[in-house]
Amino acid sequence: MQLTGNLLIGQESAFGSNGSIKAVNAATGAAIEPAFGGATLADLDRACALAWAAFDVYRETAPEARAKFLDTIAQNILDIGDDLIERCMIESGLPRARLEGERGRTVGQLRMFADVVRNGDFLGVRIDPAQPERKPLPRVDLRLRHIGVGPVAVFGASNFPLAFSVAGGDTASALAAGCPVIVKAHSAHPGTAELVGRAVQKAVKDCGMPEGTFSLLFDSGRDVGQGLVKDNRIKAAGFTGSRGGGTALMKLAAARPEPIPVYAEMSSINPVLLFPAALANRGEAIAKAFVGSLVLGAGQFCTNPGLVLAVDGPDLDKFIAAASAALSETAAQTMLTPGICKTYQGAVERAGEHAGVTTAARGVEAKGANQGRSALFITTAEAFRTSHELQEEIFGASSLVVRCPDLATMLDLVESLEGQLTSALHIDEADYAEAKRVLPALERRTGRLLVNGFGTGVEVGHAMVHGGPFPSTADGRSTSVGSLAINRFLRPVSYQDLPDALLPDALKTDNPLGLNRRVDGKLQLAK
Amino acid sequence: MQLTGNLLIGQESAFGSNGSIKAVNAATGAAIEPAFGGATLADLDRACALAWAAFDVYRETAPEARAKFLDTIAQNILDIGDDLIERCMIESGLPRARLEGERGRTVGQLRMFADVVRNGDFLGVRIDPAQPERKPLPRVDLRLRHIGVGPVAVFGASNFPLAFSVAGGDTASALAAGCPVIVKAHSAHPGTAELVGRAVQKAVKDCGMPEGTFSLLFDSGRDVGQGLVKDNRIKAAGFTGSRGGGTALMKLAAARPEPIPVYAEMSSINPVLLFPAALANRGEAIAKAFVGSLVLGAGQFCTNPGLVLAVDGPDLDKFIAAASAALSETAAQTMLTPGICKTYQGAVERAGEHAGVTTAARGVEAKGANQGRSALFITTAEAFRTSHELQEEIFGASSLVVRCPDLATMLDLVESLEGQLTSALHIDEADYAEAKRVLPALERRTGRLLVNGFGTGVEVGHAMVHGGPFPSTADGRSTSVGSLAINRFLRPVSYQDLPDALLPDALKTDNPLGLNRRVDGKLQLAK
Repeated sequence: MQLTGNLLIGQESAFGSNGSIKAVNAATGAAIEPAFGGATLADLDRACALAWAAFDVYRETAPEARAKFLDTIAQNILDIGDDLIERCMIESGLPRARLEGERGRTVGQLRMFADVVRNGDFLGVRIDPAQPERKPLPRVDLRLRHIGVGPVAVFGASNFPLAFSVAGGDTASALAAGCPVIVKAHSAHPGTAELVGRAVQKAVKDCGMPEGTFSLLFDSGRDVGQGLVKDNRIKAAGFTGSRGGGTALMKLAAARPEPIPVYAEMSSINPVLLFPAALANRGEAIAKAFVGSLVLGAGQFCTNPGLVLAVDGPDLDKFIAAASAALSETAAQTMLTPGICKTYQGAVERAGEHAGVTTAARGVEAKGANQGRSALFITTAEAFRTSHELQEEIFGASSLVVRCPDLATMLDLVESLEGQLTSALHIDEADYAEAKRVLPALERRTGRLLVNGFGTGVEVGHAMVHGGPFPSTADGRSTSVGSLAINRFLRPVSYQDLPDALLPDALKTDNPLGLNRRVDGKLQLAK
Repeated sequence: MQLTGNLLIGQESAFGSNGSIKAVNAATGAAIEPAFGGATLADLDRACALAWAAFDVYRETAPEARAKFLDTIAQNILDIGDDLIERCMIESGLPRARLEGERGRTVGQLRMFADVVRNGDFLGVRIDPAQPERKPLPRVDLRLRHIGVGPVAVFGASNFPLAFSVAGGDTASALAAGCPVIVKAHSAHPGTAELVGRAVQKAVKDCGMPEGTFSLLFDSGRDVGQGLVKDNRIKAAGFTGSRGGGTALMKLAAARPEPIPVYAEMSSINPVLLFPAALANRGEAIAKAFVGSLVLGAGQFCTNPGLVLAVDGPDLDKFIAAASAALSETAAQTMLTPGICKTYQGAVERAGEHAGVTTAARGVEAKGANQGRSALFITTAEAFRTSHELQEEIFGASSLVVRCPDLATMLDLVESLEGQLTSALHIDEADYAEAKRVLPALERRTGRLLVNGFGTGVEVGHAMVHGGPFPSTADGRSTSVGSLAINRFLRPVSYQDLPDALLPDALKTDNPLGLNRRVDGKLQLAK
């Protein structure tokens, strides 16, 4: 499939005139064709106007029609075939198997949201029937449903060029909620973005959705990203990236005449707590699994295990020795972009030079440009407590082991941690009592707690929370992965005494959509 | 019951040393005893420390224990007896019947949240069972519940001294969600606040809840209010008041190192749309009902009908004549505070002097101090469109009728309105088609749509939305009234592969709490 470098604004396809960008071969650093034209503010305005015009129609599409649209996007992505994987490999430096898996996940989550739309529970229908005889005042008829918040701006993520970019989780959940989407493509994978964007654009047409349901913009600077968050027709934004980028968007959104929510996923070091019995019984096996998780995808996961807390002693020594041995054999891996690689190398260098830190092991030296060499560091509880910079995420395959003098100190350190996407406990049965003591502190700062595993590998399901208190995300009240993510783009609306003729189908008395409903506070299943 | 003027910090009761305030007799403007000592920053710190210490224990209280606590608060408020009503009448200027009704609503919503806690659906339990045989990778066991966000700051509201103050909607929903609460009393009704505060404080003790579950602070300036929103142990805030006050809190919350949500309910003019057939058939009856809603409680409701849109012509003339006749007979009413009365009078004066506005009618002149005299103004569509100040809420019994040249202009004007708590349509069957055309625009900017009624009278139920897009509230994704309000103080947490021994009861395999659960995405009722 031939790339054009064009902006996709509704059903249009035209080259942007606000500068241009080219993708870079992640492995070599060489620019690759074609150029992608950056959107002007006029392009942005047109995309927003189309999205706004589409909103009222799109949000009232029948469940089956909207579900079919999501399924069609999934199929159209598959129909691109290997061109998508090959372009994405070059742009991201990620290997084929990973990207084929990620494509499966992307398609899977679009289909999951199609099922969520068909199921209809996301509408959260509540009915409090009228009580005309109630004293002293009759009770009105009240019915509630949720509607989309409005057009949503989605920022493509560098580290998931398929699953968190043009047709990724944010786009899928926003479209499922009934919100038109304008995507700002990530500059690291514009070709991948165009291919997927055309698949979505075609699905809009195939399914007869309103033209402005989807647009894709390239940004040669910051005009588009900032402009989207400031535009009064955009009612929410989804972002995955750096803490600096995310907090900048949060500030822009809060400063609008009408502030809007920004769902920014930013930074997490995903503490791993090793408890004494598990460490004694299985320390070396845990060490190997830990290194496997750490270097997966060159460590470029939000859920990468960047921190290990454990009680000092011979068992921890053995763990460190085993982890060091495993890590020192790991090959350097191509990182997503030269910029990310450079930032990683700088951060690892600073960590290694930190007065309170020693280097336990480094991976095999890089053989090519733009490769990240893994790193394992050790520090003391005291140094960790007093050096806030040791809590900062290093995006890449680097982790820090904190030697704690005792379990109480380890549990204390947990209370000094910022918000996290995941926290992992490695425990055997003898550890349960101590683990139980630390759970409340972990729950308060974590979106997903896990036992005897690592946070990498985020299951796309109904019970997943991929989110957590600030700064892991902008706001821990939601998830970006899994079916619960649809809630981020919904708001409740109540209808009082509307005649059936004016009620939306979801709220009509004879329940034409066959929805589960909460009647007078009690859940009633449709079937 | 003797008032002490004391701060209630956990189970302590002590006079604050940071200045003091006295209540004012709303009808006379005279200060009344006793003085209430303002909290110091040390007092604030102690309340936050206690709340923080209480959080982990309180949020894990069993459903029945927490429900009983809410029921006990309700009973303790009733047990205060007439002292509460009498003190509140003096402080607020509101009449006995209104306050007895408001007490009933306050007690009713505490009991409703007790039932919500017993029911357990608010926990939003989801279970995706493990699939150890899945290929290529086994599926982990994932379980999700919602927990409280943390200690919540609640700002008492001037216009609901019972239902939206110390033990009002925000407090009830936060406590139901498992969050300790620190209330900043409104300076307009400190005696009412102390009485209710002691009822809550006693319930904490009666029910054996952790001491820091509740504190009540008086503020002689802005130290306490600002300090609460800035304290890192406070994780959300609930506020009902002015747009200036609400947006100031939003800014403070967004500027924290860890930003938190502020649920501020601020400003709404609650448009009333009169459609041609209804206006022709029932104009005079609607006019009378409109004036009744407008002057209710001296117009001091967030849902007060401050704007009427209708097509110009003889039917609208008749409506205005009937409304003017009814309004001119309405007595001036004591307002909540001298400050609110003065602001009201100033705003009404400015409206009357506006070049594009004529005065249709005024209520009976005030006979006493601090009384608000109702007002009805008329303007043109053109003046309304070009004068943004005519869209600003006048807090009190004042409304503005906009004469629209035609229905299209009326529908256009809707698109120029800011976010609203309520929008009302007055329609007969012949109006349905036109009403249907305007519904999407109203839904986009309104929390509750209603037909042939007025927004005053907010039913406390399960299908109520009392919220709406900015500036009616800080964020239209939630409600402050009704059982759905509990969601504001919850966040989801996911548990992966935890042994049953470490899972919270809500997620244990044998479902000891008897909860409805979503298994693999499908709702399953417990019984």
